[in-house]
Amino acid sequence: MKVCVLLSGGMDSVVVFHQALREHEVAACLSFDYGSKHNAREIPFAAHHAVRAGVRHETIPLDFMDRLFTSDLLRSGGGIPDGHYAEDSMKRTVVPFRNGIMLAIAAGFAESVEAEAVVIAAHSGDHAIYPDCREPFMQGMAAAMEEGTYARIRLLRPFIDMDKAAIASRGAELGVDFSETWSCYKGGDLHCGVCGTCVERREAFLLAGLTDPTLYEQTPALPTL
Amino acid sequence: MKVCVLLSGGMDSVVVFHQALREHEVAACLSFDYGSKHNAREIPFAAHHAVRAGVRHETIPLDFMDRLFTSDLLRSGGGIPDGHYAEDSMKRTVVPFRNGIMLAIAAGFAESVEAEAVVIAAHSGDHAIYPDCREPFMQGMAAAMEEGTYARIRLLRPFIDMDKAAIASRGAELGVDFSETWSCYKGGDLHCGVCGTCVERREAFLLAGLTDPTLYEQTPALPTL
Repeated sequence: MKVCVLLSGGMDSVVVFHQALREHEVAACLSFDYGSKHNAREIPFAAHHAVRAGVRHETIPLDFMDRLFTSDLLRSGGGIPDGHYAEDSMKRTVVPFRNGIMLAIAAGFAESVEAEAVVIAAHSGDHAIYPDCREPFMQGMAAAMEEGTYARIRLLRPFIDMDKAAIASRGAELGVDFSETWSCYKGGDLHCGVCGTCVERREAFLLAGLTDPTLYEQTPALPTL
Repeated sequence: MKVCVLLSGGMDSVVVFHQALREHEVAACLSFDYGSKHNAREIPFAAHHAVRAGVRHETIPLDFMDRLFTSDLLRSGGGIPDGHYAEDSMKRTVVPFRNGIMLAIAAGFAESVEAEAVVIAAHSGDHAIYPDCREPFMQGMAAAMEEGTYARIRLLRPFIDMDKAAIASRGAELGVDFSETWSCYKGGDLHCGVCGTCVERREAFLLAGLTDPTLYEQTPALPTL
């Protein structure tokens, strides 16, 4: 199938991209620069994987989101909280309807390049605190994309029954070098090791029994819920 | 209800805005500059109506659509066909998933400004040739917006059971000056009078029994289907 892949440069989307290269014809990868603190750290990794595979890579600028939207994930927002991803404090890092916006743009782009589907690395560990990660959102959005395009663009979620540790294992099988991916929401020179997304990244390697190649600023004992 | 209104500067959205001013608290109006040939003609009318009513107006730049998407409505596309809107040739003016992209961004913006709903001037005459005007698309998108936001942002379509002539009549009742609206897809100095959207505009005034205040370049007999 001819597909477009949402490729942020994080662990999950890099693995889904490498899997899609084996299963599909990848027409293009899309990254979105919406003004998060870590866009400048993750998007170069997205470009790196796409270019090395000889696949078209487009970065969609969405500067208005940093200017108009409210979220601590954005440069215009407050600091990134430390702790576990599933904690209530992480709600401040939700960018309102971000997945809806990215999928809508990807659907229009996919129709323009005559692709048949959009691939997203949504997984079973995606966070119940984020409404635009939940199943009812995904089902509504998939219906909108299919009904709202001539090509009936499909939404593919190959990792939806896997958790992040299983994605790490799949990436290892596919030969993904995870040092060429970025997670930390703080967007510093190194992964901080203590924000929600760094904690989740460290947990995933630990649970998968893989060596974590990431350079962290600090690695205190992982918090438990 | 606290709402955001999609306000392009066309007849339908200007009327829905003036109706919303009476029925709701309008937090903001959103226009989208996606690189169409007529954005530069319609958006100033959107700003004009919002500013005069003392309502916040934001223009969201989506330049990437003109660069990456395929449509004759865009500056990067071919010429705008003449004739009736419902003709097959008008398919070339579809901007893939445009309504999906605008509604997704509006949902995220609405959540950021603590609004409860997004108002769109979709109507019963909206075109069956445009997949992202059809009812199954709208239902999927409404579900995605509601499920994908904390505030369960609603999609309001107050004109969905009205045709364009009925909207013209409603606008007249609300005191809308239709010379302060723009329809023509060609985006010239005057409305051309012969493209699909000009034909639809002329028909609407005729059917509503209203004087059409628009200055057209030409007004040949209206085509019939």
